[in-house]
Amino acid sequence: MKIKLNDNFNNIAESYLFSDINKRVKAYKEKNPSADIVRLGIGDVTLPLPKIVVNALVKASEEMGVKETFRGYPPEYGYDFLKEAVARYYKLINLDLDLESIFISDGAKSDLGNIVDILGDNDIYIPNPVYPVYVDSNLMEGRKIHYLKGSEENKFLPMPDGLNNDPKVIYLCSPNNPTGATYNYDELVKWVDYAKSSGSLIIFDSAYEAFITDGAPRSIYKIPGANEVAIEVSSLSKMAGFTGVRCGFTIIPSTLEVSGVKLNKLWKRRQATKFNGVSYPVQRAAEAALSIEGIKECQKNLEYYKENTKMLRELLDEKGIYYSGGVNSPYIWMKCPNNMKSFEFFDFLLEKANIVGTPGVGFGEYGEGYFRLTSFASNEDTKKAVERLRKIL
Amino acid sequence: MKIKLNDNFNNIAESYLFSDINKRVKAYKEKNPSADIVRLGIGDVTLPLPKIVVNALVKASEEMGVKETFRGYPPEYGYDFLKEAVARYYKLINLDLDLESIFISDGAKSDLGNIVDILGDNDIYIPNPVYPVYVDSNLMEGRKIHYLKGSEENKFLPMPDGLNNDPKVIYLCSPNNPTGATYNYDELVKWVDYAKSSGSLIIFDSAYEAFITDGAPRSIYKIPGANEVAIEVSSLSKMAGFTGVRCGFTIIPSTLEVSGVKLNKLWKRRQATKFNGVSYPVQRAAEAALSIEGIKECQKNLEYYKENTKMLRELLDEKGIYYSGGVNSPYIWMKCPNNMKSFEFFDFLLEKANIVGTPGVGFGEYGEGYFRLTSFASNEDTKKAVERLRKIL
Repeated sequence: MKIKLNDNFNNIAESYLFSDINKRVKAYKEKNPSADIVRLGIGDVTLPLPKIVVNALVKASEEMGVKETFRGYPPEYGYDFLKEAVARYYKLINLDLDLESIFISDGAKSDLGNIVDILGDNDIYIPNPVYPVYVDSNLMEGRKIHYLKGSEENKFLPMPDGLNNDPKVIYLCSPNNPTGATYNYDELVKWVDYAKSSGSLIIFDSAYEAFITDGAPRSIYKIPGANEVAIEVSSLSKMAGFTGVRCGFTIIPSTLEVSGVKLNKLWKRRQATKFNGVSYPVQRAAEAALSIEGIKECQKNLEYYKENTKMLRELLDEKGIYYSGGVNSPYIWMKCPNNMKSFEFFDFLLEKANIVGTPGVGFGEYGEGYFRLTSFASNEDTKKAVERLRKIL
Repeated sequence: MKIKLNDNFNNIAESYLFSDINKRVKAYKEKNPSADIVRLGIGDVTLPLPKIVVNALVKASEEMGVKETFRGYPPEYGYDFLKEAVARYYKLINLDLDLESIFISDGAKSDLGNIVDILGDNDIYIPNPVYPVYVDSNLMEGRKIHYLKGSEENKFLPMPDGLNNDPKVIYLCSPNNPTGATYNYDELVKWVDYAKSSGSLIIFDSAYEAFITDGAPRSIYKIPGANEVAIEVSSLSKMAGFTGVRCGFTIIPSTLEVSGVKLNKLWKRRQATKFNGVSYPVQRAAEAALSIEGIKECQKNLEYYKENTKMLRELLDEKGIYYSGGVNSPYIWMKCPNNMKSFEFFDFLLEKANIVGTPGVGFGEYGEGYFRLTSFASNEDTKKAVERLRKIL
C-alpha cells in the first residue's frame, strides 16, 4: 500500500519492560526450577470481586435474557443510575457534581488516552517517573513533551516552580503510579493557581484515590477553582478490583472552557462518534461497587493489600532505605541500595531472594536507580518476601 | 483557559436527526395522546440475548467472585479463547485467520472511530448515504473527505469507476447502513483490484454480515488479495444482539503494510496505549455467541427480524415503490413517494399512519428523498404498520 501512516508512531519507544522482566524470570527459572519465586511486581489486583458486585453483574446479565428487561445500546456517556452513583460517591467527600459533567468509561486508560482527541497542539507537561500512557498518547499526536522531574528532593512530587507562564496541558497523577507519592492540599492549591494564572489545563489521574488515608485530597475538585482548570479521570480498577471488569469515570465540569467552548461539549461529541457506551451489566456492577455497602466491601480488599505495604514499609524503615508511597498507594517506590541501577537491583533480588519487582526506569528516565514493589501478592507471600529481604538488604 | 483545542471539531455538523425526530414525535403525541404509534425507526435490536449467551455471562460473572477463577486486566487485544472463536467463525465461511490478525473490541464503533489514529493525512473516500461515524471521525482529524455517491442508478453501491489512481483510504459498508445494499463478489473484486492498483486501504465495515442470505461475501477476505489492502471491522451487536453487551472484532492481517510497516503493529501499539481490553464476562458471552449452538440461537432472532423485512418488502413490491435492502439487512431503504423530501415523508407517515421511521437525509445529502424502515419492532407491530401503509401509500 502507498497510503500515509501516522509517522508519529516512529517516535514512540517500544516498551520492552515487561517482556524483558518475563525473559529474565524465565531464564532464572530454567536454571533454578525449584526456586519459590514471590511476585511483587504485579500491577493488577488479585482479590475477587465483592459479593454485592458479583450479584449485580449476575442480575443484570440475567435481565439481558428477558424481553421485558433486555437493554440495547447504552447511553454513550453512561446510564443515569451509574452517573448518580458516581455523584453520590463524590458527595461522600463533600463535592457536588452535576450529571452532565460525569462520563462513564470502560476504564481510565481509554479516557486518558483518548482525551488528546479534543485538544490542539499544546506543550505537554508530564511527571517523570509516571504511568506511560500520558507520554505515549501525546507522542502519537506529535506533541512536544516536557518532563516534570520527580526526585527525592521534591519527594517525587514536582511543583510548578520555575515553569514559564504559557498555557500548557499538565498531567498529574496523585497518588502517583509508580511512586505512590501524593500531593497534599497546599501543593494542589499551587498547581491549580498556576493553571489558572497560566491558562493551563490539568488532567488529573485519580485512579488510586481510594488508597488515600492521610487526608490528602481524593479529588482535584477539593481545590477551589479546580473546576475551571481540571479534568479528573478515575477508575474502579483499583478501588473495586475492576481491572478485568472495565469501568471508570471521567469528570469534565461545564465550567471548563476555552473562549466560550466547553470542553465537555467536545468530549460529548468525541464519545458520541467513537464510543458506544459501557456494557450494561458492567454499569450495574459499578453501581453496586459505589453503593455504601459496596464501598465497605471494597475497602476490606484494600485493607488486605495495605497489610502488605505495611510489612514492606516496616522493613524498609528498619533498614533505613529511602522509599516513597505505601501509605496512600498499593505501591512502594524504593531506592535501590548501594547505588544499584534498576535492572541491576532487579537481578540481585531475583537471584538472592527469588523476588520479582519492577525496575523504576521502566516509568521514565528519572526512575533509574529506583524500584517498585507492589502489595497485590498474598499476605503470606509478602511476609515470606519480607523475611528474605531482611536477610539480604 | 487559553490552551488550544482541536479546531477540527468546528467542522463537524451537529447531528440533530434523532433529537429532531423525538421532538416531532413528542409534539404529535401531545396533540394526539391516544395515537398508537409504531416505531420502525429503531436502529437497535429488541430481542433478548439467547440463553447460551446469558449463561456464559452469568458463569463468568460468578468466576470473578472466586479467588481461584478471578481475572484481572484482560489482554489488550482479547483473550485467545475469543480470538479462537472468531477464527472458527471465519472458518465457517472457509477463511483462515491467524490469531495475530484478530483484535477484540468493545464494539465496531470504537474501532471504526479509533482506526484514524494509525493513519496519516490521506484523502478519504466515503459512501453517501452511510453510517455517520466514518465522516465524523475523519473530520475530527482534519482529513479531506470525498463522497462516493449512492443512488438508484448504482443501486446505492458506488464503484471505483472514474476515481483517479492516487492512494486513498476508502470506507465500504456492506451490507450498508442505512440502504441495506450489499456488494456482490464481482463488485468487491473490482474494489480490491482498484485498491491494489492505487495503493489504497479499504476499511470494510461488515457489522451486518450475519444478515446476508443471497450468497454475497460475508467478509472482504473472500476476495483474493484483500488481505493486502483491507481492514475488516465487525461486531456482535447485530449478529448476536450485543448492542448493550458491547463486543466486536477487527481484522488487520499481517500482510497489510506500507513500506514494510505492518498496520497491525501500529494498531497493537495504539490499543496497548489507549485501551485496556474488553470485560472478561463480555468476552465469555461473545465466545458463547460464536459457538455453533450460539450461532444457531442468534440466527433464530435474525429470522424473527427477517419476517418483518419480508412483510415490508412485499408491501413495497405490491405498491411498486422503489427500495433497496431488506434481504441481506434489517433495513429497508425506500424512495419517498410523490417526490416527497425525507422529513416531509416523515411527517406524512407520522400523521397519516402513526408510524415513525428515519429520514434518509440523516445519513448524508444523497439520502434526501429516501427513508429508512427497520425490522426491529415486533412482528405484531410491523404487521399493523404494513396494514396502515397499505392504505396510505
